[in-house]
Amino acid sequence: MGRSVSAHRAAIRGLLAPLAAREPEVRALVDALGLALARDVVAPVSLPPFDNSQMDGFAVRTADFRDPDVATGGEGARDGAGGLRAFSLAASIPAGAVPGPLSAGQAAPIMTGAMMPEGADAVVPVEHAVPPRFPGPSPLGSADPVLLPEIKPGTFVRLVGSDVAEGAVVLAAGTRLGPAQLGLAAGLGLTEVSVWRPLRVAVVSTGAELAEPGAVLGLGQIHDANGTLLTAALREAGLDARATAVRSDEPAALREALDDAATWAELVVTTGGVSKGAFEATKLALADDPVEFVHLAMQPGGPQGLGTVHGVPFLGFPGNPVSCWVSWEVLLRPVLAELLGAPAPRRRIVLPLAEPLDSPAGKLQVRRARVDGGAVALVGGPGSHLLGALAASDALVLVPEDVTDLPPGANVEVWLL
Amino acid sequence: MGRSVSAHRAAIRGLLAPLAAREPEVRALVDALGLALARDVVAPVSLPPFDNSQMDGFAVRTADFRDPDVATGGEGARDGAGGLRAFSLAASIPAGAVPGPLSAGQAAPIMTGAMMPEGADAVVPVEHAVPPRFPGPSPLGSADPVLLPEIKPGTFVRLVGSDVAEGAVVLAAGTRLGPAQLGLAAGLGLTEVSVWRPLRVAVVSTGAELAEPGAVLGLGQIHDANGTLLTAALREAGLDARATAVRSDEPAALREALDDAATWAELVVTTGGVSKGAFEATKLALADDPVEFVHLAMQPGGPQGLGTVHGVPFLGFPGNPVSCWVSWEVLLRPVLAELLGAPAPRRRIVLPLAEPLDSPAGKLQVRRARVDGGAVALVGGPGSHLLGALAASDALVLVPEDVTDLPPGANVEVWLL
Repeated sequence: MGRSVSAHRAAIRGLLAPLAAREPEVRALVDALGLALARDVVAPVSLPPFDNSQMDGFAVRTADFRDPDVATGGEGARDGAGGLRAFSLAASIPAGAVPGPLSAGQAAPIMTGAMMPEGADAVVPVEHAVPPRFPGPSPLGSADPVLLPEIKPGTFVRLVGSDVAEGAVVLAAGTRLGPAQLGLAAGLGLTEVSVWRPLRVAVVSTGAELAEPGAVLGLGQIHDANGTLLTAALREAGLDARATAVRSDEPAALREALDDAATWAELVVTTGGVSKGAFEATKLALADDPVEFVHLAMQPGGPQGLGTVHGVPFLGFPGNPVSCWVSWEVLLRPVLAELLGAPAPRRRIVLPLAEPLDSPAGKLQVRRARVDGGAVALVGGPGSHLLGALAASDALVLVPEDVTDLPPGANVEVWLL
Repeated sequence: MGRSVSAHRAAIRGLLAPLAAREPEVRALVDALGLALARDVVAPVSLPPFDNSQMDGFAVRTADFRDPDVATGGEGARDGAGGLRAFSLAASIPAGAVPGPLSAGQAAPIMTGAMMPEGADAVVPVEHAVPPRFPGPSPLGSADPVLLPEIKPGTFVRLVGSDVAEGAVVLAAGTRLGPAQLGLAAGLGLTEVSVWRPLRVAVVSTGAELAEPGAVLGLGQIHDANGTLLTAALREAGLDARATAVRSDEPAALREALDDAATWAELVVTTGGVSKGAFEATKLALADDPVEFVHLAMQPGGPQGLGTVHGVPFLGFPGNPVSCWVSWEVLLRPVLAELLGAPAPRRRIVLPLAEPLDSPAGKLQVRRARVDGGAVALVGGPGSHLLGALAASDALVLVPEDVTDLPPGANVEVWLL
């Protein structure tokens, strides 16, 4: 029944493996969004970089709660008001300040994120204090103590290194850089990262049936969906894709486009002209190049080309829009994710089918679907021309080669789009 | 316990509702990637636009299989070779061509996507023919018939309009334009779409504790994670976000940044300075503006500001990185998705917890997590400073206000990141 999907993915992996040896590029953090790290990021500092307060409150020495010898701010303080103890006020500690040490019997107003004073080991939230507010701007010398309930050592203190330890690999090479990863890099004081630059991909759609964009269709003509569909999919995945359309089945016209693409692209992808017809332009244009044309055990997306053009990796996807897009999702995207770390692979879950399903024996069937509640419902039939149905989908259902029919409720592999 | 999350989302919706009345912008298809449609797209043509072949094969009139009067290409043709019937060859039909009508007894070699000839009502795949290949370039006048097995009417024919009917609303206003939606628009012959332009958002991070990016930390200082974290999150969601840092708690310094932001931004978001401390720069800078500072029943992300600065919508997020990012994910992002159609809302599923969980009474707890197999495991504790843990997460777990503890295996709401 043709080459297996996993065997073809392995062939694509072999074809593209040299791309993982490119020179990395150094980019400012926000400009690296969606790209993959080329080198490990090692934490140059710990996070937090110093013990700090988790709350707006009062930093205290918890030993004071049990030490009868500690001078306190007022008489009758201990247990004077429902288990409260009086503390005299030290200077307030805003975030960013370097506090002096805290003496026994003192409580220092401290703001969230501010450095804990030496000697303090816990923070009482301001709303638990009596009175439940901070003193005015000059608390030093004030005669009024603050009454605080006893707390355990460590309460509301964020210890140095409790999130990230200095020297640890916090982001491994190959990690896709989303907002959280870039935020972490910024929090560590980094301003740039070493990443794999977006791959330059030429998307060449072919076919004598293709009308000029925006033109009224002649009889037998269609508008090219593939150029936009595939270019948008590659760009959304963080690749630098540019589209060309060859509106002809003349091999020479396609050849010219391929020769041009090979001058600048790191990967050339065509759509169409790889099947069993009598006018397969892509097959004809590449007849003398090291390109193999195979049939995969996959529906849709069976006919595929793979090789090089002037030494540049080449993939020939089929021309039906859904076949072309499924080829990207099921064949190319997982290999790029594995080799380069970006784009992210699709998230895969298992869900019950909302309806029965037929699948051809010996082929991996890839159906378009929607996740609805706790089940997955098919959208449109298996036909590879169903572009409207594709646009209404948010998931793929993958039916293994050896499965020919499934009842409603059967668990299936779902890729979330 | 403070304002509910749903009440605060409603307040944000009210604040941002006027943004849905902006003038739409017309963009070329690929430049609209990730944006939301401002107007319905009505199909100007049907898809497919004409009956066409789903296979490389032979177009036939299926009545011929049962009509004894039809002239066939050779004697002994009917049932002559395992239920095959002989057909004389008509001219080949490549994709893009306009075929002549098919006469009784004829079979026309036809390529995938090519227009069905008048009279034909089914296609026999070439691999089922005898011989299983197309004739040479000039089949007309050839004496050799092709033998074909009987098939049912309609087999391997894609009927006009079977995917999309002319005049139907195929993409509703508010639809986020991903690759499939843009591919559909291209397939319909459109070259541009009317979209909501990316919102211009000023991200202003504040705090006297913030060190210059790349500088060695002084005692008590930290690096600003929020500016990068939030700007990257907004950009990934398709917004036009630009970051400013005010490394001071001086209200006047922040005020200057806010005044500037209000000259160009359509939404101003600050991080920090909205809590109960004694030096809350954002609260102080906006003391005379129509801005309310509230405490939400949410952990993290409790302290929040909401109002306008010089008439521009303003949101004050808290300064801890996780609080700031959760505020975006749980408060702002869902409102933008609902009002404008983009970004897409997070996909929500229900999964069992891999471990027990505690949650404060009366607060929506938002925990960082990873989906692992069929369960969800927490990453790091509930602390709002755990940036390293955030960067290792791929999901959020939302624990409702009235839940205080959950055993392993309990089902929880999961938002996939």
